[in-house]
Amino acid sequence: MQKMWQGRFSEASSELLEAFNASIEFDKELYAQDIAGSKAHAKMLGKCKIIEDEAVNKILEGLDQVKSEIENGEFKFNIADEDIHMAVEKRLSQIIGAEFGGKLHTARSRNDQVALDFRLFVLEANLDLAKLLLNLIKTINSIAKEHKSTLMPGFTHLQHAQPVSLAYHLLAYAFMFSRDYDRLISSHKRNNLSPLGSCAMAGTPHPIDREMVANELGFNGITPNAMDSVSDRDFALELLFNLSVVFTHTSRLCEELILWSSSEFGYITISDKFSTGSSIMPQKKNPDVAELIRGKTGRIYGNLISLLTTMKSLPLAYNKDMQEDKECVFDSVKNAKNSLIILNAMIEEIKFNKENMLKATKIGHLSATDLADYLVKKKFIPFRQAHFITGKCVALAESLGKDLSELSLNELQSVEPNISTDVLELLTLESSKEARKSLGGTSDYSVDIQLELIDKFIKSQEI
Amino acid sequence: MQKMWQGRFSEASSELLEAFNASIEFDKELYAQDIAGSKAHAKMLGKCKIIEDEAVNKILEGLDQVKSEIENGEFKFNIADEDIHMAVEKRLSQIIGAEFGGKLHTARSRNDQVALDFRLFVLEANLDLAKLLLNLIKTINSIAKEHKSTLMPGFTHLQHAQPVSLAYHLLAYAFMFSRDYDRLISSHKRNNLSPLGSCAMAGTPHPIDREMVANELGFNGITPNAMDSVSDRDFALELLFNLSVVFTHTSRLCEELILWSSSEFGYITISDKFSTGSSIMPQKKNPDVAELIRGKTGRIYGNLISLLTTMKSLPLAYNKDMQEDKECVFDSVKNAKNSLIILNAMIEEIKFNKENMLKATKIGHLSATDLADYLVKKKFIPFRQAHFITGKCVALAESLGKDLSELSLNELQSVEPNISTDVLELLTLESSKEARKSLGGTSDYSVDIQLELIDKFIKSQEI
Amino acid sequence: MQKMWQGRFSEASSELLEAFNASIEFDKELYAQDIAGSKAHAKMLGKCKIIEDEAVNKILEGLDQVKSEIENGEFKFNIADEDIHMAVEKRLSQIIGAEFGGKLHTARSRNDQVALDFRLFVLEANLDLAKLLLNLIKTINSIAKEHKSTLMPGFTHLQHAQPVSLAYHLLAYAFMFSRDYDRLISSHKRNNLSPLGSCAMAGTPHPIDREMVANELGFNGITPNAMDSVSDRDFALELLFNLSVVFTHTSRLCEELILWSSSEFGYITISDKFSTGSSIMPQKKNPDVAELIRGKTGRIYGNLISLLTTMKSLPLAYNKDMQEDKECVFDSVKNAKNSLIILNAMIEEIKFNKENMLKATKIGHLSATDLADYLVKKKFIPFRQAHFITGKCVALAESLGKDLSELSLNELQSVEPNISTDVLELLTLESSKEARKSLGGTSDYSVDIQLELIDKFIKSQEI
Amino acid sequence: MQKMWQGRFSEASSELLEAFNASIEFDKELYAQDIAGSKAHAKMLGKCKIIEDEAVNKILEGLDQVKSEIENGEFKFNIADEDIHMAVEKRLSQIIGAEFGGKLHTARSRNDQVALDFRLFVLEANLDLAKLLLNLIKTINSIAKEHKSTLMPGFTHLQHAQPVSLAYHLLAYAFMFSRDYDRLISSHKRNNLSPLGSCAMAGTPHPIDREMVANELGFNGITPNAMDSVSDRDFALELLFNLSVVFTHTSRLCEELILWSSSEFGYITISDKFSTGSSIMPQKKNPDVAELIRGKTGRIYGNLISLLTTMKSLPLAYNKDMQEDKECVFDSVKNAKNSLIILNAMIEEIKFNKENMLKATKIGHLSATDLADYLVKKKFIPFRQAHFITGKCVALAESLGKDLSELSLNELQSVEPNISTDVLELLTLESSKEARKSLGGTSDYSVDIQLELIDKFIKSQEI
Repeated sequence: MQKMWQGRFSEASSELLEAFNASIEFDKELYAQDIAGSKAHAKMLGKCKIIEDEAVNKILEGLDQVKSEIENGEFKFNIADEDIHMAVEKRLSQIIGAEFGGKLHTARSRNDQVALDFRLFVLEANLDLAKLLLNLIKTINSIAKEHKSTLMPGFTHLQHAQPVSLAYHLLAYAFMFSRDYDRLISSHKRNNLSPLGSCAMAGTPHPIDREMVANELGFNGITPNAMDSVSDRDFALELLFNLSVVFTHTSRLCEELILWSSSEFGYITISDKFSTGSSIMPQKKNPDVAELIRGKTGRIYGNLISLLTTMKSLPLAYNKDMQEDKECVFDSVKNAKNSLIILNAMIEEIKFNKENMLKATKIGHLSATDLADYLVKKKFIPFRQAHFITGKCVALAESLGKDLSELSLNELQSVEPNISTDVLELLTLESSKEARKSLGGTSDYSVDIQLELIDKFIKSQEI
Repeated sequence: MQKMWQGRFSEASSELLEAFNASIEFDKELYAQDIAGSKAHAKMLGKCKIIEDEAVNKILEGLDQVKSEIENGEFKFNIADEDIHMAVEKRLSQIIGAEFGGKLHTARSRNDQVALDFRLFVLEANLDLAKLLLNLIKTINSIAKEHKSTLMPGFTHLQHAQPVSLAYHLLAYAFMFSRDYDRLISSHKRNNLSPLGSCAMAGTPHPIDREMVANELGFNGITPNAMDSVSDRDFALELLFNLSVVFTHTSRLCEELILWSSSEFGYITISDKFSTGSSIMPQKKNPDVAELIRGKTGRIYGNLISLLTTMKSLPLAYNKDMQEDKECVFDSVKNAKNSLIILNAMIEEIKFNKENMLKATKIGHLSATDLADYLVKKKFIPFRQAHFITGKCVALAESLGKDLSELSLNELQSVEPNISTDVLELLTLESSKEARKSLGGTSDYSVDIQLELIDKFIKSQEI
Repeated sequence: MQKMWQGRFSEASSELLEAFNASIEFDKELYAQDIAGSKAHAKMLGKCKIIEDEAVNKILEGLDQVKSEIENGEFKFNIADEDIHMAVEKRLSQIIGAEFGGKLHTARSRNDQVALDFRLFVLEANLDLAKLLLNLIKTINSIAKEHKSTLMPGFTHLQHAQPVSLAYHLLAYAFMFSRDYDRLISSHKRNNLSPLGSCAMAGTPHPIDREMVANELGFNGITPNAMDSVSDRDFALELLFNLSVVFTHTSRLCEELILWSSSEFGYITISDKFSTGSSIMPQKKNPDVAELIRGKTGRIYGNLISLLTTMKSLPLAYNKDMQEDKECVFDSVKNAKNSLIILNAMIEEIKFNKENMLKATKIGHLSATDLADYLVKKKFIPFRQAHFITGKCVALAESLGKDLSELSLNELQSVEPNISTDVLELLTLESSKEARKSLGGTSDYSVDIQLELIDKFIKSQEI
Repeated sequence: MQKMWQGRFSEASSELLEAFNASIEFDKELYAQDIAGSKAHAKMLGKCKIIEDEAVNKILEGLDQVKSEIENGEFKFNIADEDIHMAVEKRLSQIIGAEFGGKLHTARSRNDQVALDFRLFVLEANLDLAKLLLNLIKTINSIAKEHKSTLMPGFTHLQHAQPVSLAYHLLAYAFMFSRDYDRLISSHKRNNLSPLGSCAMAGTPHPIDREMVANELGFNGITPNAMDSVSDRDFALELLFNLSVVFTHTSRLCEELILWSSSEFGYITISDKFSTGSSIMPQKKNPDVAELIRGKTGRIYGNLISLLTTMKSLPLAYNKDMQEDKECVFDSVKNAKNSLIILNAMIEEIKFNKENMLKATKIGHLSATDLADYLVKKKFIPFRQAHFITGKCVALAESLGKDLSELSLNELQSVEPNISTDVLELLTLESSKEARKSLGGTSDYSVDIQLELIDKFIKSQEI
């Protein structure tokens, strides 16, 4: 079978080459972008009088037919066609004849064509993923609103630290995901430029109108230098990185969900709908979804390293190495979408076991910082010394098998005689939580501000 | 030696622990940020009446003294101090007494303190690196302006493709680096928020004013949720990624400089000032700088993977794992700065061997696309067929040992009788280059527009 | 549809869960290993009187039928079956009835079953890949034998350094690939142990015979601790790393092939069979295969990072994260196999342009080290001083526009009067190459030893 | 200051170059290897009559003096010396005079010199790290011996699965670390070959004896091809990978230690000696060591990616990029050594809270698999059906708020009438554990075999 570039070649391709070189198996995913780009290109060629109107009309109709053949499953993908670009063009020429179909590739190269298709894919993925993040933020925010008074231990080093509300803990994730959202949108804006018309890497002598094509396809403008345009994959690297940060965040959330659904924690119960069992142990109920999302972090990081490595040290302009740019992006996008969708659905159905959380809050002397702060505020003891005294009270409580909040006034005074009766009220968990009224803190006052910030963020993005 | 947190402990730290746990060896790099943060914090504590004015004044003076001791080299860093925060505070208390020094840590934790210091470091690095990129863009642009008529082969697949100007080729890098610049600035804006006042991870009962501290330190605002604030390292990940893309670009440029300075290419001569010799081969002159920058891409990518891996799956809020966040960032920033500075200096002194470039342009049938375009434009042959005919002409030229541009009219007509005499002028290298007047192309017309875009970019950033 | 583990569940799986959780789409690749493992397990259950002979016979026949259905394309893979293990078992029970099929999973869990299947796959891949490396080594060795007297420049820093033979240069790769071979075989030996019988992670009360299963499947022994057995993926990490080193080597070789086939080098001509053209530039002939193999290095490194990341910090024993272990391995193995096959085929047909190589050898003062060594050996000048004198001679040659080997005796003596006429013969390229008779050197004497080493290596592996 | 390779250069190095290019700041770590290599080289040069005995003696004495100056801290490292090789040689020439010192570099290049030094470092590191792993294995084994009857829940998916002994759980790590040990030793053997005498990359005309040098330095042989020898860094990649797997394992162990020392688990108490406190929360006691080791996994993976990336696509032979090979290795080795030492010390002092472990074992229906196995063995019910019946019993227990082992015979029979009184004994935790007598299982019988295997392993390595 003759290749479209065979003119100067004296020997046919090895079969090994055909199979190894072809990208059609995966880049067919870009058929819609490819056809949209070709239609915009054809219209422009017509308007600029580079090809005649009759050819334009035939091409547009032919491309529509190709598209519907693909979507109906009638299209035969063939490894000898190399890639989606050649496959679409060849079928087009079969439908409308080579005298018309052969004109479509005027003032265009596969180099700028694939740059266009891939960029369109990545730009759409940015927006799709941003929407999924927004859904997740909404879900978290609405759960948080119900749990302002659900007490739980705040952790550092996986040790109980200070009492917080579940609302407050969950809001930390809402703010993480809002940064992720911001990164996707920011990347979308930076890269929303059409590379078409760059041709091989030096532009073209044909009197084309790149801006017309860009408008037609919804871009904000055109890329400024053709050599850069065909060798640039920054837009894809940005997406792979942005998803890596998303998965850094989801892996943290999923780690917590797995911990919290263990027998030892018992903070949450994951719905049967989102759990699975064991082939051998009949009693098992496993938090598979959270584990699998956490596990997928590996492939998402791997895909980033993959493309960074591929792009390293490539001389300008296009090199065949760059054919390796797509599968890693397709894989990250698909897995990220699926993960965000199911994470959202699973979270919506989590049952929070408030009593277990509350019980846990009573372990670990969570009001120790409050005692130190009391000594500073009421007894004018420098913080460092107050910290030391409190440490002694904690050691006493440990030795008595009690929580710090359970020490009597006498016991406290045995460590520091200045402590007076007003301390006792402060050491309760509820007042500990409510005392933290600083901006960003865990008191209801502070949490209300945070909920409102997220509400505003959601609204501003939905307009 | 007693630790500041020793109150509740009954056994002293193992010596192994002290050495293993301490971060002072590397986080002393943050001393300036730490002291600036402490000063802003102390002023705020005073203004909010949390500590008395006398303490504030003592603390401010004391901190200034600590700073000058560090900068004079008088300060003794000691592994038992654990980290820069404890080291500074301890020395402060020695200078002004524990009754004052012990008050500084009121309403603060190391968790938010290190989040502040590190964020300040990263924000400054973003701006420093952006400036270095701007210098590099300026250098490239000013070299490009001198080489609009320097012809060279444009490459794809490291094969000669079409004639371009050196100016045009260099501009591709100017645009890459301008995107890198944009990413750094965009990250700076997103993360320009003060985490101080988040304390351990739940805020504080003291009536602090977080916004005052933020203003004092030049931030745009404050972080919204304390638990997120102490566990967030997105700002550092963004920097590590942005530098990874910078090095993707510099590795491509350096690869070309290495190729171009080989005997085979001979396109450039690197100054003796930026070359080195061999310990055994007396004739050698090596492009070490370009190689070393290319080689450093490895550590820059590695540092990104390092922090992504460390952050994966950490439950909230702060975990000691996060102490591993700094060295990778310090290393990437230092190496990136040094690389950008010397790359700029080396490029300024490169000698471009125009004759060798021109000679190379005559190899590889660089005007083949022009012949195909001629057949389309003048002879109304569909592009696909024109491509095929040109391929045949190239094969003929190869068999005659000539470049396509050296074929006679007769020879061309032996392949395609329609070709007429007007083709000969079009096949020269200069007219090939000048024909590509499309936006983003290599003609002088198009390159002037690109030079102007970069000029505008530079000016807009310098205001 | 009822899951096999549904007993204790009160709600059905969400459809989202089914799609997200299922691994059948990719782990069906393990069908042959799964069925082989099940057959060995069934035989053992029979021999140990855990299930009756009738059941064994039915199961063996049924499994054979399942296998042939899969290989004939008649088998319906269904996402609701979760994975290849459940799919095979379910179909088995349809064929032979649940009263027999339901006995197969006695004394087995999916945890040890998948550990077995995956390990079998990896062990086979080790051997398959080793064979492909051996083929490549043979090809390189046989080409090397033809090019002992083909002179070319040896490079360091991509600068001409000393004259070498092409045979010698190619042998460097033969030795690299022989280390790669060694690593694969060494990993195969270390991991050639059967995990079956580990069950969920604690073994089983059934009186099984793990060694019988191991023998049946060709293992060298059994894994010693069941908890480790079901959570160990070292064998897969080793393969991913070993392939990363393979691709470090192939990327270096391909980089050289790309350089050598450029117009500037012109050292080799790649066969049309393994080259492709351009959609726009009719004259282009691109070394796609070498570029694509070089580019695939990214995915191979990425897959390694992917699995390392996934395995990080997982508590014992099996976690669902580990389902992510397979696709990265399948992808690396497939791409490595295809790359090694086509690389071998392409290299076999490369045409080496000896004249261009020879011409290149005359550029860059390649005999400079010989001059320095002459001054040491014949004139008893310390090497450092000899190096300096030679540097001066090189500078003189440069200023005269000559190669060092072209300087006259007078010119040489103008730098160092002690130089005598015997030097002239030594400075020729051929004698420079032949002088290097040290073990591992480039002289024919030394190269013959190397060729023999490789021959021996090949023979020792083929027994 | 004049460079040793300055002969042919007309301009001095830029100061930027000196600072950027120099490796002395980090490669001084190789001083001992460098001097040992130079001594062996000098002796060989003498024995082969390449330099005279007087020079050899002077050089040997001089090198000893250089070494002691370095170890006494008298040696002045200077960035202008570029690297440890030049620094040592220059100082040597100052001590013994250039007429002798200048002879040392005969028949040697920095390319093979650094290959030698670095390889010696890596080989030593392999053995050092193997010893530390062996210590860790011993510690784990001796703890395991004390805990054969300490019951705890075995986990999958972080859910209770089946009862196991602590001994058994710990042994999983002993086997992991024994594989790590094996990999280090195997890599050591593969790479234990001397590259010295490879010179720049083509060998030397001097009549050297490479095997003598190899013997002198304790190698098993010499590398076979000089071009490969100076460009090979496989030995370093292997070490970086082997440490990555070590940290995969330590991160899993540390994750468990962190979980187990949480309030929720309470399985262990880490000694105060290996814990730290909080700057703000006086009650905190944090498992910093385990967290920090887990966190260091990031840098260890990052270092691997770093060197893989650096080596990708480098043409032969030596390139300056390869100077980036050392810091990543030094960093991984140092951090791995420190981590293994402190991990060992910390584990030795862990207090295991047997009662909490036992209590946990009673939650989660851990004997469910035993019930299913009972139905198979005693009631001849196919496993799949037995699994389903048991699931129903578990659901019943859940609804009654009991553990499966607490159900009465009546209750069990309400699900499956065939169940008889003999089941009750089987459902206790101790008999569940003891029933698993299969090889690799958790019964005392099986664990004794595993302990013996590890004992044998330890003994065989200590010979």
